[in-house]
Amino acid sequence: MPAVKIIMSTETSASETTPLRRSENETPDHKELAQSNSNSRQTTVNSNNNNYSNSVQVRLQEQDRDSDSEQQQHTATITMDTNKRILCRVGLDVLILLCAGFPILLFFLLGEPYKRGFFCDDESLKHPFHDSTVRNWMLYFIGAVIPVGVIFIVEVIISQNKAKQDNGNATSRRYVFMNYELPDWMIECYKKIGIYAFGAVLSQLTTDIAKYSIGRLRPHFIAVCQPQMADGSTCDDAINAGKYIQEFTCKGVGSSARMLKEMRLSFPSGHSSFTFFAMVYLALYLQARMTWRGSKLLRHLLQFLFIMVAWYTALSRVSDYKHHWSDVLAGSLIGSISALVVANYVSDLFQKPNTKPYLARTVQDMNASPAQAITITTN
Amino acid sequence: MPAVKIIMSTETSASETTPLRRSENETPDHKELAQSNSNSRQTTVNSNNNNYSNSVQVRLQEQDRDSDSEQQQHTATITMDTNKRILCRVGLDVLILLCAGFPILLFFLLGEPYKRGFFCDDESLKHPFHDSTVRNWMLYFIGAVIPVGVIFIVEVIISQNKAKQDNGNATSRRYVFMNYELPDWMIECYKKIGIYAFGAVLSQLTTDIAKYSIGRLRPHFIAVCQPQMADGSTCDDAINAGKYIQEFTCKGVGSSARMLKEMRLSFPSGHSSFTFFAMVYLALYLQARMTWRGSKLLRHLLQFLFIMVAWYTALSRVSDYKHHWSDVLAGSLIGSISALVVANYVSDLFQKPNTKPYLARTVQDMNASPAQAITITTN
Repeated sequence: MPAVKIIMSTETSASETTPLRRSENETPDHKELAQSNSNSRQTTVNSNNNNYSNSVQVRLQEQDRDSDSEQQQHTATITMDTNKRILCRVGLDVLILLCAGFPILLFFLLGEPYKRGFFCDDESLKHPFHDSTVRNWMLYFIGAVIPVGVIFIVEVIISQNKAKQDNGNATSRRYVFMNYELPDWMIECYKKIGIYAFGAVLSQLTTDIAKYSIGRLRPHFIAVCQPQMADGSTCDDAINAGKYIQEFTCKGVGSSARMLKEMRLSFPSGHSSFTFFAMVYLALYLQARMTWRGSKLLRHLLQFLFIMVAWYTALSRVSDYKHHWSDVLAGSLIGSISALVVANYVSDLFQKPNTKPYLARTVQDMNASPAQAITITTN
Repeated sequence: MPAVKIIMSTETSASETTPLRRSENETPDHKELAQSNSNSRQTTVNSNNNNYSNSVQVRLQEQDRDSDSEQQQHTATITMDTNKRILCRVGLDVLILLCAGFPILLFFLLGEPYKRGFFCDDESLKHPFHDSTVRNWMLYFIGAVIPVGVIFIVEVIISQNKAKQDNGNATSRRYVFMNYELPDWMIECYKKIGIYAFGAVLSQLTTDIAKYSIGRLRPHFIAVCQPQMADGSTCDDAINAGKYIQEFTCKGVGSSARMLKEMRLSFPSGHSSFTFFAMVYLALYLQARMTWRGSKLLRHLLQFLFIMVAWYTALSRVSDYKHHWSDVLAGSLIGSISALVVANYVSDLFQKPNTKPYLARTVQDMNASPAQAITITTN
C-alpha cells in the first residue's frame, strides 16, 4: 500500500472548487511519515469560521513498508495531477468567457443593424445631435476599474481579518500552485472577478443582440442622417408625409461613418445595461461580503452611491438625445436582472457555505480504492 | 383472511404517483409466503437516496390457512388492479392534456378574431408585409424538439449516474408494467415531458384567448388588407381622416385568406410566448436537474443560450413588422410567467423530495379493512 499524503485546501473556483495544495513548510517531513507504520486513517475536518469558503484540511496518512522513493513518486503524481486539474479548470473558465465575449467583438466589428424605415412626421426622431455626457472611457472606468478595485480591496481586508482570527498565523492561508505561493485573497479575487466578468459579458451580449436585431433609430436620426428619398425628395416635401419610408440615403453632412452606424442602435441603451449590471452587482457583492460590524450605514451609503452612478448614467442618455426613454428603461432592466440572476444563482455570494467541497469526491475515491483512484504513475 | 401481497414502488407520475410493480425477480416465492403462518404486519418504508422519486416498498404479508389457488387468484387481482390503476392514471393525464389542447385546435380551425376598426392616420399600421424570420417549423423545433431532446439526454445521464452510485446494480431501478420492464429514466422522461407539454398547452391557450378576443391589427394591416369603405372610398381620401372606420372590406390584392385572418391576431405574440415558455422552462429544468460537478459555468452558458434563442425570436417579430413591441412584451411575459409557475408549482423539479407518496393512502385503506378495500374478484 503506497503512502498517500494529500494536503489540499478546497476553495470554490470560478467554475468549480479549486483543490490547491497548502505550502510545503506546513507538511511534516516525509521520513517522519515513513517511520510511523501505523495504518491510522485520520480525517480531520477543520472548517474554520470563514463563512464562505470552508477550507477542509484533509490529512490522510497511510504509511506502508516500501522505501522513500516510491513514496516521493506517488506524492509527485498527486501534486502533478492536482495542478493539472486546476489548470483544466482555469482553462475551461477562460475558454467559456472568451466564447461568450467573442460575439460582442464580432458585433462591434462586422455587425450590421436591421435597416428599419421611418415616418417623416415622427417627432421622436427630430432631436439635435449632442455628445455623450458619459463618454465611453468613463463607461469602462465605471464598469471595469471600480468593480475590480472594490472587489480587490474587500477580499484583502477579509483575508486579513481571517488571518487575525487564526491568531496571527497569516501563512496558514497560503496555497502553493506550481511552486508559487498564492495568498487566499488572490484565489477569491480570481473567482469573484471571473464571475463578475462572465455576468457582464452575458448582459452585454443580450443588449447587443437586441441592438442589432431591432435597429431602432436614435432620437437624433433626422439631424445625423438628413435622409434623402430615392426620388431626391426629403422630409420637407409633402409627398413623403404619412408614408413609411424605407428606401433612402443619408446625406449625413458633418456625420462620421461611426455616427451613421450608431444611429440605428438605439434599443436598448448599452450604457444603461452595462452600468446597471456593474453597480447592482457591486451593491449585492458588498451586501454579501462587507460584513464588518463597524460600518453598517457606511456600507449602505456606498451601495447607494454606486446605484446613483448607474442611475445618472442612464438618465443622461435621455438628455443627450442618444436614446428614447424606453431604450434606457429596457437597458436598465436587462442590466439589473442579469446582476440579480448572476449574483444569486451563478456566483457563491449568497449560497450557504456548505456546498459539498470538490475534494470530498476524491476522498470518496480514496476510501473506495485509495491506491488506484488518483495515481497517474509518472515512471 | 386472504393472503394479501402488494409490492408496489410509487413514482410521482405526471399528475399523481404511478404505483408500478418492481420486477418479478424481486418478489419472494408464493409457497414460502403460505408456509409462514404468522400474522406479522411489517411495513418497511425504504426511501432510497433518489431525491426526487422515493420508492416506498410496502411489503404487507398477511398469510392465511386457505389453499394456494385462492391466493393466486387474489394476487392476480391485485397485479391486474395495479396495472389498471396505472393505465387509469396515464389515461387521465393524456385526457387532461387533450382537453386543454383541444381549444387551441378549435381556435385555429374555426376561430374568428374580434372585428376591430382603425383610423386611417394610424401610422403603426402602415408597415410593409415581410415574411417571418423565425418560420413556424423553426418554432416547433425550438418549442418541441429541443426541450424533449434535452430532457431525454439529462434524464438518461442522471439514471446512469444513479446506477453507478448503486454500485452497478442497474436492475434495482427497473419497473414492470404489463410484463414490460421499464427503465427508470423512461418514467422520469414521461413525467417531465408530460408536465412540460401541459404547461406549453396552457401558455398557448392563454395567448390564443387574448389573440381572438382583442383582434388587434398587425403593423402590416393596411398593406395586407388595402381597406375599402362602404362608400367605395379608401384611406387616401380626406373624408376618412380622423374617423374610426369599422365598416370596410379588404381588397387584399396579393393577400392570402390565411394572411387576412392572421392580420387581426397581433396581440399577444404567439412566437414570443411559446419560445419564452420553452426556453425559460428548459433553463429552470437544467438548474434543477443538471447538477454534475463538471463545470458550473458551462451549465449557465447553456441556460443563457436557450434564453437568447427566445430573446432573438421575440425581437425578430418586431423587425418583421408582424407585431407591435407591446405584443412581443406581453407574449414574452405570458411565456416566462407560465414557465416559472409550472416549474415551481406543477412539476416536482424544485419540490423537496418527501412529497407524501400516493401509496400511503392505500396503506391506510389497507389498515382499515384490508380484505374488501382492493379486491375485485375475478371468478
